[in-house]
Amino acid sequence: MLVQSVRRASAILRTLAHGGPRLGVTELAEQVGAAKPTVHALLRTLEAEGLVEQDSETGKYRLGAGLLMLGNAYLDTHELRARALTWADSLAKRSAEAVWVAVLNGDHVLVVHHAFRPEGAVQILEVGASIPWSTCALGKAIVAFGPTADRERLLAGELPVLTGTSITDPVELATQLDQVAATGYAVEDQESTIGDAGVAAPVYDRSGHVVGAIGVVGPVERVLVEPTRQEIAVMVRETARMLSRDLGAARTPSRRGA
Amino acid sequence: MLVQSVRRASAILRTLAHGGPRLGVTELAEQVGAAKPTVHALLRTLEAEGLVEQDSETGKYRLGAGLLMLGNAYLDTHELRARALTWADSLAKRSAEAVWVAVLNGDHVLVVHHAFRPEGAVQILEVGASIPWSTCALGKAIVAFGPTADRERLLAGELPVLTGTSITDPVELATQLDQVAATGYAVEDQESTIGDAGVAAPVYDRSGHVVGAIGVVGPVERVLVEPTRQEIAVMVRETARMLSRDLGAARTPSRRGA
Repeated sequence: MLVQSVRRASAILRTLAHGGPRLGVTELAEQVGAAKPTVHALLRTLEAEGLVEQDSETGKYRLGAGLLMLGNAYLDTHELRARALTWADSLAKRSAEAVWVAVLNGDHVLVVHHAFRPEGAVQILEVGASIPWSTCALGKAIVAFGPTADRERLLAGELPVLTGTSITDPVELATQLDQVAATGYAVEDQESTIGDAGVAAPVYDRSGHVVGAIGVVGPVERVLVEPTRQEIAVMVRETARMLSRDLGAARTPSRRGA
Repeated sequence: MLVQSVRRASAILRTLAHGGPRLGVTELAEQVGAAKPTVHALLRTLEAEGLVEQDSETGKYRLGAGLLMLGNAYLDTHELRARALTWADSLAKRSAEAVWVAVLNGDHVLVVHHAFRPEGAVQILEVGASIPWSTCALGKAIVAFGPTADRERLLAGELPVLTGTSITDPVELATQLDQVAATGYAVEDQESTIGDAGVAAPVYDRSGHVVGAIGVVGPVERVLVEPTRQEIAVMVRETARMLSRDLGAARTPSRRGA
């Protein structure tokens, strides 16, 4: 049995995360679908816990600093991320591109580590970025090697259009996932961001389950031209395998939730 | 009136953040001080909301990916941080050092933005770092210009020792805060980290309240030698003033919660 007040408190946090920076009790009560006094009591509790903050002038609410600390603690205690740090750095050096490590969270991948491209201009840290699984190499790598039930559910769900090359046909995407499973790596060709490409491979833990993916992200002009593309694919697959071993995975991990 | 189940859910998250990466229901029930069935229901709810994750093998719990997304949303919707980005970059260029922007969260400052030092070796992003207020320039700048009630409460609280120069005498610290209020900037001389120094000034919003601080952080050998120290102090104070204006503060903000 789920605890309703905790669900509502979580809905308040999600609403504040998505629905603009500052909302009042009335707006929140509408969005969460609860009575105003209930929402008010939840907000006061969340405020006491540092999870929301109230603007002293307007009385409106926004997310609290406690969430940044919890989000950081999530990263600090994340085993995949901890083990991936040196592997990601070494892959970034070898490929001369940025490297991302991600986990599946619902139907999005969540970037939990970002090793900057060794050379180059200003780069924005993408840790915490959330990307629809079907539009990036990381997501396709995780789903292609994950449990069949997840794959079916995700293929049946929304396949959003972020660019002109985002794949929205589940049959076409399923074919691509089979190719990913056959070659051991997934490719993005500007499906989430125009101009960007990615090559990613799955990472396993000691139980033989896919826990995430690691991959190279960079301009399509550099990443997807041959022979670089092949070289990057080999590097990414090797790195993912070494990282999996580091996480306790067996030499030949099971496939597709077997 | 606070909602007990939400407080307990929050206590579970804090316990998982501090108390090791993975805990079972029994350990969590002990730490949170609630019955096991209660804690189990809370954990199932938090799991359904993506705020905790259960290890499929051991059945133990850890923080969930939803917290990283909420922590990121906190940063994205943070007005001080949004306004500080270009000011922090420009201060980092002018001072040739790293720049941090922080808010007060309980008795710690929380780093909400970090502009890297323009030149130099590998740097670790410190966004999300939490530092005792009394040991850093950012904390002293916020408290020196904040409400008198906060100052009294914080001076009466714990003043932790992080290095040999951390100030633990409330009278000595109060004198230093008066100097900060007189000069408009605060200084750290290796009080949180051996070898590191900081210079910071308070940032005000449109209501005239201190909302945070911005400051330079770097090796004591570079930051605190004259005439650099004076030059950095002037730059930091000017930048904090411009950033405050950007946030809607009046030309001469009120002092000490007046």
